[in-house]
Order: sequence, then C-alpha cells, then structure tokens
Amino acid sequence: LSSKLPDVGTSIFAVMTQLAAEHGAINLAQGFPDFNPPAALTEALQRHTLGAQHQYAPMPGLPRLRELIAAKTAAVYGVPAPDPVTDVTVTTGATEALYAVLAAVVQPGDEVVVLEPAYDLYGPAIRLQGGTPVYVPLTVPDFRPDWERIKAAITPRTRLVMVNTPHNPTGAVFTDADWQQLAKILAPTQTFLLSDEVYEHMVFDERPHRSALQYPELRERAFVLSSFGKTYHATGWKVGYCLAPPALSAEVRRVHQFVTFSVSTLSQLAIADVLGDVASYDYLPAFMQQKRDLFGELMRDTRFELLPSEGSYFQLARYQRIAPNEDDVTFARRLTTEAGVAVVPVSAFYHNQTDHGLVRFCFAKQDSTLRAAAERLRQL
Amino acid sequence: LSSKLPDVGTSIFAVMTQLAAEHGAINLAQGFPDFNPPAALTEALQRHTLGAQHQYAPMPGLPRLRELIAAKTAAVYGVPAPDPVTDVTVTTGATEALYAVLAAVVQPGDEVVVLEPAYDLYGPAIRLQGGTPVYVPLTVPDFRPDWERIKAAITPRTRLVMVNTPHNPTGAVFTDADWQQLAKILAPTQTFLLSDEVYEHMVFDERPHRSALQYPELRERAFVLSSFGKTYHATGWKVGYCLAPPALSAEVRRVHQFVTFSVSTLSQLAIADVLGDVASYDYLPAFMQQKRDLFGELMRDTRFELLPSEGSYFQLARYQRIAPNEDDVTFARRLTTEAGVAVVPVSAFYHNQTDHGLVRFCFAKQDSTLRAAAERLRQL
Ligand SMILES: CSCCC(=O)C(=O)O
Ligand SMILES: CSCCC(=O)C(=O)O
Repeated sequence: LSSKLPDVGTSIFAVMTQLAAEHGAINLAQGFPDFNPPAALTEALQRHTLGAQHQYAPMPGLPRLRELIAAKTAAVYGVPAPDPVTDVTVTTGATEALYAVLAAVVQPGDEVVVLEPAYDLYGPAIRLQGGTPVYVPLTVPDFRPDWERIKAAITPRTRLVMVNTPHNPTGAVFTDADWQQLAKILAPTQTFLLSDEVYEHMVFDERPHRSALQYPELRERAFVLSSFGKTYHATGWKVGYCLAPPALSAEVRRVHQFVTFSVSTLSQLAIADVLGDVASYDYLPAFMQQKRDLFGELMRDTRFELLPSEGSYFQLARYQRIAPNEDDVTFARRLTTEAGVAVVPVSAFYHNQTDHGLVRFCFAKQDSTLRAAAERLRQL
Repeated sequence: LSSKLPDVGTSIFAVMTQLAAEHGAINLAQGFPDFNPPAALTEALQRHTLGAQHQYAPMPGLPRLRELIAAKTAAVYGVPAPDPVTDVTVTTGATEALYAVLAAVVQPGDEVVVLEPAYDLYGPAIRLQGGTPVYVPLTVPDFRPDWERIKAAITPRTRLVMVNTPHNPTGAVFTDADWQQLAKILAPTQTFLLSDEVYEHMVFDERPHRSALQYPELRERAFVLSSFGKTYHATGWKVGYCLAPPALSAEVRRVHQFVTFSVSTLSQLAIADVLGDVASYDYLPAFMQQKRDLFGELMRDTRFELLPSEGSYFQLARYQRIAPNEDDVTFARRLTTEAGVAVVPVSAFYHNQTDHGLVRFCFAKQDSTLRAAAERLRQL
C-alpha cells in the first residue's frame, strides 16, 4: 500500500504524550487541561446518560445546540446571529471541522495559504485533497503576520487562506488592524477564509478576542471554527463547530455527512444545557491568565526565556542548549526523558522543521502541576 | 464555491428522518433502535462521567478497549488475535472508519468496486478522493453477488473492493462459498478489500456471520469494520473500529489523526467495561430475529411482500403501487406523509436510482412500535 502521506509520521502531540507516559514526565506537551470540565457540564451529561437519547443526532447537530451557538455568537461578538438552520454545523471536535472545510473547498491543484508555525494537521489535510500548502512564515521573534508577504503569496489559484487566532503554538493574537489588512487583501479575490478560533475565550490582559465574524467582508467568505473541548476543558468529548454562510455550510455538511455523519448526542445535549449561561465561559480569560502569569513567575531563574503569550493556553520558551547543536526535537526529548517535563518542539509546527531554538509549554494545568514542572525544570 | 459533490444531496437517512418528524410518522427509515443500550453500558458511562478522564484518548483508541476488541475478534471468529497495538483503530463510528480507509487507500484515478445496492456514502466518499466507483449490481431478486461480473469489473486500476455482510439494505449474508470466490478473484491482484461488517451480530436462522478475517488470503489485504453503535444500540455514541494488518492500519491512522484525531474517551471507557462479557452481544441474533419474524407476521395481509432478510436489522419489501408509475421515492414519501410510516426508498442505494419497486424497513424497534407501524400500513 503506497502511502498518500509518506513523509507524515504520527502527530507530534501523540508522540510526546506517549513519551511522557513512558518516562513518567509531567505532560506540558499535548494541549489539554489536567482538571475536569465544569461540574454543571458533567452533571448534565450524567443526567442525559440516564435518559433515552442514545441514537443518532441530526446530521448538522442538535437544533437546540445550534440555536444556542448562534445566540452566543451574536451576543459575544455583537454580530447578526448566524442562522442556526443553515449556518451552524456541529462537528467531531474542531479537528473534523478543519478537515471537512478542507475536503469541501480544496480541489486538486488549489493553493492554500498557511501561516507558519501552524497546527500540524493543516498541511497534510490540504495535501490529502490534492491541494498545495503555500507557507508564509510569521515574523520572528513576535510571530506577527507579515501582510505584505501574505498578499504576495496569493495567486489566482489560492482557494483558501487559513488563519488561527489566538494562535497555537505562539499565543499571538490578531489585532483589529490585522483583520482589516486581511479583509483588504481578500476583497479583490475569490479566496475563502478558514479562521480557526478555538481559543476564542483565552485572550489575556483585558484585550478582546476579535473574530473574523466581526468583519462583514470576511464573514461572507469565512468558515469560523470553535471547540467546546477547549472552552469546557473537555478535549476528550470531541465536540466543535463550524460557522459559515449557507452556501459554504452546505458544502461542509456534504462532506461531514460522509466523514462522521453526526456527533455524540449525549455530549451535545449536555453542552446545550450549559451554553446559555455566560458564566460557563466568561471566567476563562482571567482563569487562564492567572495560570500564564503563575507559570511565568515559576519559570524565572530557569534556563528558559519565556516569550509573551497573549492568548491560547500555550507559551513559547527560548531554551539554552545543553548539548552543542541540539535542535528543538532533541531538546524536547531530553526534557521529557531527563528532566521529566514533556514539551512540544516548535520545529514540529514548520513543514520543513525550521528550528528557532523554541519549545512550547501548555499551561492549562492545575497550579500544583505547574509548580511541580517548574521545580523539575529549575534542576536543569 | 463550486461543489465537489454537486449531484449529492443530504443523506437519504437524514431526509427521511426529518420528513418523519414533520409528519409525526413512525420512523422505520433511518437505521437505529428505538430502545436503549444495555443498562450495564449506560451505567458504565454514568460512572465514568463522574470520573476524571475527560481529555483526549490516545489517537488509535484506548489501549484497554483495543485489547478487548482483539480478544473478542479472536474468540468469536476463531482467528489469531489481531495485535491491539498495531491492528486495531477505534474510530468515530464505522462511518469515520469507512471514510478513513477510502482516504488512506484511494488515489486519484483509482477504481473501487462497489456492489449495488450500497450504503449511500460509498460512492461520494470514493469520489472525494478522486477515485471512480465501479458499480456491479447484486442479482435481483435475491441480492447475491455475481462473482463472474465482479471478477470482470476488476482491472489493474482497481485499488479496492468494498463488500458488506450482513448487507444493508437487503439483509443478504455472504456464504462461505462467497468468501472463497472473492479470495480466488483477489489472489492474483494488488487489490485491497474493505469489509463492512457492522451487523456482524445480527445473522438469523442459526447461521454464523462469516468474517473476511476468517480467510487468510483476504485477511492480509482487508480492512474489516465494525460498529459499537449497532452492537450496543448506541448509534448516537459514534464509536466503531477498523481491523487491518499493521501496514494498512498505519495508513488508516495517518488519516484518522487528521480527520478526528481521537474518539470520545468516556464512550470508549464505558464500552471497554462491557465488551469482555460475551452476554453483552451473544443474545443479539435471537433478539433481532424475533423482531424480524414478528414484523413479518404483522405485515401479512398488507400491500407489501416481504423479501427474505438473513441478517442486519433491515427488511426489504416489494410494494404495490398506489399511483400508476409511482417510483420508490414517491412511494416512500407517500408512506411517510399519508400512512405515517417512514421507510427508505431502495432506489436511493443505487448511484443511478435504479428502481425495483422496493422500500426498506428497519425492524430494530420495540415490538409495540412494529405493531403500531403495521397497523397503519394495513389501512393502506
Ligand atoms: C489533537 S491533539 C493536539 C492538541 C492541541 O491542540 C495541541 O497540543 O496543539
Ligand atoms: C448514519 S444514518 C444511517 C443509518 C444506517 O445505517 C441506515 O439507515 O442505513
């Protein structure tokens, strides 16, 4: 069987989590909280488990959940509510939403602009559709989009531009000016936009998250993704969604129905029970900022220089090499196996493994976990 | 946005379920039970909901669940146990397994042999990969594979043959002779086999289900799919799996990690708690056969002639037209809207809507539901 992705190995997140388990390392690599979802959510799931709704949910998602997603979107971003019937599609995590958008939109020969460093699925999922990822680096060291270079990368064959804010792995956040620039660049083109906003509720220092939905010229061409796994500390539940205008959503659903058909009914019921309550997510920016700040404190006097994180639950750090010529991957493995703290090498977010001497920490952890990890890292 | 599947509408199952809901019809269309999963399973889920495992499961599935799947496979089919580490991949329902196998195996220009009538995703999911479905009809009226025609359909460009036993929608079941023929046909080729065995525990009249796994010449080239949604009356949980030799599983996982990454942790934990107990599935053949037989009884003296169903939870029926020239789709809609019983038109399982004057009933329903449906159909 000749591989369609011969150069792609197992996802770096799975690899580092496995290595962490083998070495009893504290896992600050793969992005997930080490604490539970809100009690209201697990209690709701428990209630529904005892009920009688164990069969297929409607293909685009439970109507009540879609209505709540639409209403929340309007309330949080001050935009017209998406139509729950035509514009909202519930997916098996934002991962399936990403995949379904790419499978629906990208035709063989199409180009897709990807800003690097980028989440590891973007490139392979584009290539599986016969598309070509066109990589544009974010500027170093502050990982901002270089709009001149992005504009220059767009050709008549560019079907889609993918953006991600708050950004994984860097924690950088788009400004209003960024979105304005993007709108100006895309206006004269036929290019669609995939806006991965799964960390929408984790932006720090009193800044708002700005969504592609807030820019009408972008909204009409955008697939906007979010994730209840992130917002509700429930990455194992695998529920996310895609917002897009009717004609775009119709194509996403055409694919979604053949990729997974529908999403866990019980999880959707439970999420619908809590989503109407603003308090279920509005504490998150302060909650995660406290963790970012605590981790920053704890990591002083270590061999790591922390870069600013404006959002997401990730934190980049410049490390001092231990062996000469050590690269991100070698260093990340050493940290995991020798210091007992697993991290992700940032080179894994570049298609050609560009090395900037950086690793990524996930700080969505109990304070005690962050303390224990920093303690180990201080020994280094 | 130009559609990649311009001729594909919403899945017939979603359409008929929606129509049933709008007209208060009894839904014998979409395949799902109207009763709950076994109490042991829902209780297990309830227990795990209160626990602390709400984050990502390992990408290929929970190790314990994979071990149990491997052990059960060996016990039920008398075959060497698949290696849980390399051969078992847990997926978001058998739907995602089907999609992932096709995305992993089918390259642009490849041909895939599909026996019709066929589950509605096969064709579109092949075409999304740039492949060409090559349709071979099952014989009418008993829907057996015509091995001569199948052999003739295989060319050097045939990458994959897809089979499904017990068969949806016809209820036909492969015999040992069928498998032997298939093994002989595939032996001299480089063609892979996708064997969709999601109704493995629903074969009637004391016959066994024979699996592709029982034929070593097939096993080495086969992706064998099953579904806990079917086996545990939990279609809304969305958990299935794919068994394949290591090199084949590796390619499925390469895709799976970018399509959904992993499957609901809580559902996997709960299923692992019951799967070791043979009693959790060995009652199924008799249980579903009773329903088939009851439905058969109830449907005497109606305008339907029931065709034999050897397995699955489906039943075909030849209907007497009400309007002249009425086709399967018109008749199925009329049944739903006028008689209050939703069914699936069998023409929907043919890429070119071949009409045999047949509709499909799902009999995985409470006896009272089957009685109520038959009562309505007797009025017709
Ligand atoms: C699907 S595993 C990856 C989780 C994540 O978003 C990350 O670690 O970047
Ligand atoms: C995924 S909805 C279809 C369920 C089913 O298997 C059928 O009705 O044939």
